[in-house]
Amino acid sequence: MINRRNIVGAGLLGAAGAAAAFANPEAAQVLAPAKINRNRRKFNMVTTWPKGLPGLGRAAERVAERVFAMSDGLMEIKVFAAGELVPAFESFDAVANGSADMYHGAEYYWTAKSSAFPFFTAVPFGMTAQEIMGWIDFGGGQELWDELSGQFGVKAIQGANTGHQMGGWFRKEINSLDDLVGLKMRIPGQGGDVLRALGGSAIALSGGEIYQALQTGSIDATEWVGPWNDYSLGFHREAPYYYGPGFHEPGASLAVGMNLKVWESLTAGEQAIIKAACESTNHTSLGEFTYQNSVYLDLLVREHGTQLRSFPPEVVKAMSEAAYDVRAASGKDGIEKRIYESFEASLKLMRGWAKVSDGAYYPARELGK
Amino acid sequence: MINRRNIVGAGLLGAAGAAAAFANPEAAQVLAPAKINRNRRKFNMVTTWPKGLPGLGRAAERVAERVFAMSDGLMEIKVFAAGELVPAFESFDAVANGSADMYHGAEYYWTAKSSAFPFFTAVPFGMTAQEIMGWIDFGGGQELWDELSGQFGVKAIQGANTGHQMGGWFRKEINSLDDLVGLKMRIPGQGGDVLRALGGSAIALSGGEIYQALQTGSIDATEWVGPWNDYSLGFHREAPYYYGPGFHEPGASLAVGMNLKVWESLTAGEQAIIKAACESTNHTSLGEFTYQNSVYLDLLVREHGTQLRSFPPEVVKAMSEAAYDVRAASGKDGIEKRIYESFEASLKLMRGWAKVSDGAYYPARELGK
Repeated sequence: MINRRNIVGAGLLGAAGAAAAFANPEAAQVLAPAKINRNRRKFNMVTTWPKGLPGLGRAAERVAERVFAMSDGLMEIKVFAAGELVPAFESFDAVANGSADMYHGAEYYWTAKSSAFPFFTAVPFGMTAQEIMGWIDFGGGQELWDELSGQFGVKAIQGANTGHQMGGWFRKEINSLDDLVGLKMRIPGQGGDVLRALGGSAIALSGGEIYQALQTGSIDATEWVGPWNDYSLGFHREAPYYYGPGFHEPGASLAVGMNLKVWESLTAGEQAIIKAACESTNHTSLGEFTYQNSVYLDLLVREHGTQLRSFPPEVVKAMSEAAYDVRAASGKDGIEKRIYESFEASLKLMRGWAKVSDGAYYPARELGK
Repeated sequence: MINRRNIVGAGLLGAAGAAAAFANPEAAQVLAPAKINRNRRKFNMVTTWPKGLPGLGRAAERVAERVFAMSDGLMEIKVFAAGELVPAFESFDAVANGSADMYHGAEYYWTAKSSAFPFFTAVPFGMTAQEIMGWIDFGGGQELWDELSGQFGVKAIQGANTGHQMGGWFRKEINSLDDLVGLKMRIPGQGGDVLRALGGSAIALSGGEIYQALQTGSIDATEWVGPWNDYSLGFHREAPYYYGPGFHEPGASLAVGMNLKVWESLTAGEQAIIKAACESTNHTSLGEFTYQNSVYLDLLVREHGTQLRSFPPEVVKAMSEAAYDVRAASGKDGIEKRIYESFEASLKLMRGWAKVSDGAYYPARELGK
């Protein structure tokens, strides 16, 4: 804490000096009206989110609302839900080829284009929300991201963050590594690769298919997002054990990607408006997920009999080791290798800090009342 | 994780539909130039930060730079270091009485005006960075803050966050509660109240006075901010034990406060620009502190012999219980009571979520490689 007496220079002028400095004490000078010429611009934003999706769908709308307000309505972004203009997973291509101006989505959806994209969303046993913000803005992440996305004609910016995602809903408890062998779990991406490495069966199911699969026993477990988003799908009715921590997505960062030529056609002021809209939305969504997940976790436990469980240490340890191999496989050469190495170097540094800061604080807070 | 197959509506249009939707495939429509009339506005921003202070001083400059860029230079904020226009701790009064337009500072500096202000910065065993973002934006915090600051003619917005602050530098190890009795530690504010409750002696010293006090033995310990800011003051040369977690400021939120009449005189567009500049800066600074603290902690341990220590559980437990009393004393009646109660209710909810999310994840991440 920097306290009253720490402030270098505090009191230098004192009251008299302060008064003198305001010879004209008129606050917030309003000078002559200025006319500025700005082009009206309209943008189409495709998204990878179903219409009305809380949290992430809302984040895309927030970006548009903020840009509109800040530009006095001169910059108008029309937001399309997944499938309205293009299918969700064609969002990147639509922006790259200029048929849409921007997308709001998760970079790991473009893994087929480059195995490095997941590092800009979330990877198993990787960075938390504030850590990925640190790597992207200060650890060299943005420069590498610009290089990667630039190859496809896209400029990407952070535009939302879910914070921690849960480890999933399980019909039976996981007490040892043996319980993962043969486990049929709905878990996509690198998290699925980790489960497979431990003898489980990672299954891909759409959101609408999961509940019935769980009910009929064709899967034993599923992950989704967190208490807020999971609640509406009703998994708690079929699988009583809710496991944490979520090793596979410790803080998912979502992105706004813009067609690079469109981005470069903007004035510095227009670029600044879009960047601030995206980054302020990142701020807002991290707070929103933190708060809403807290509300819905409490509701699940108090009113729906959800039982919280932690993966046993031997399971966590084995998952962590498998995750290292999965991450390394995503960064074998070229730009992918440089992104992987930059990510791992920052992660190593930030693990050291986390151990004595938030990582020590959260458990310590529970020792008292 | 929401995967490829989860997206409701994905593929509805398909390639043919997508092409049809772009009968005119021209991207990023540039319409006729529009002239907008905006007043040129100049603002003075006083701050509670010494000139050139990394992190927080830089955050104030970032707000100004972003507002300038987004407004095409029509909104100009001149930033003053502590003492340049008014002494640091007169910043709030200067803005309230209109002799300055805005401040960038820590709300707990105004504790003499209301004991509730610390809840909007940091309180012992309170919220982490992302939790306070959740409470302010979604748990009713901003409305209460508006009511509190509004009484003084000020409108406040989140404008930076340091993340976790360290527990401090100690010349001797703390192995039991007995080691706190008679301990002379430089620690201001509510953290100091907690130390006093445990028999220690909380001493107020300015930044420039701490090093010598530690060297001559007139204090036994000191806290400051975190590895990044602490490093430059050289405490590691006199006190080898660096303690975590920092129970007293688990995530300090800093604020931009604006004279309420000036705020209300702004157009909706100008308000939106200022809000996005502040909130995007909050995003940036949390990432910056996370990254830079990681770099400097590593440097201290590798090259300067700093020894990391954790407060023993009995010490943490006693500090936590004292902290509850200190917080309760800040919210006895009126608006202070309502703020205290809102904060505690959100904190309780968010503790439940933290236990299974980040609070479980950070230690789990250390079980592997």
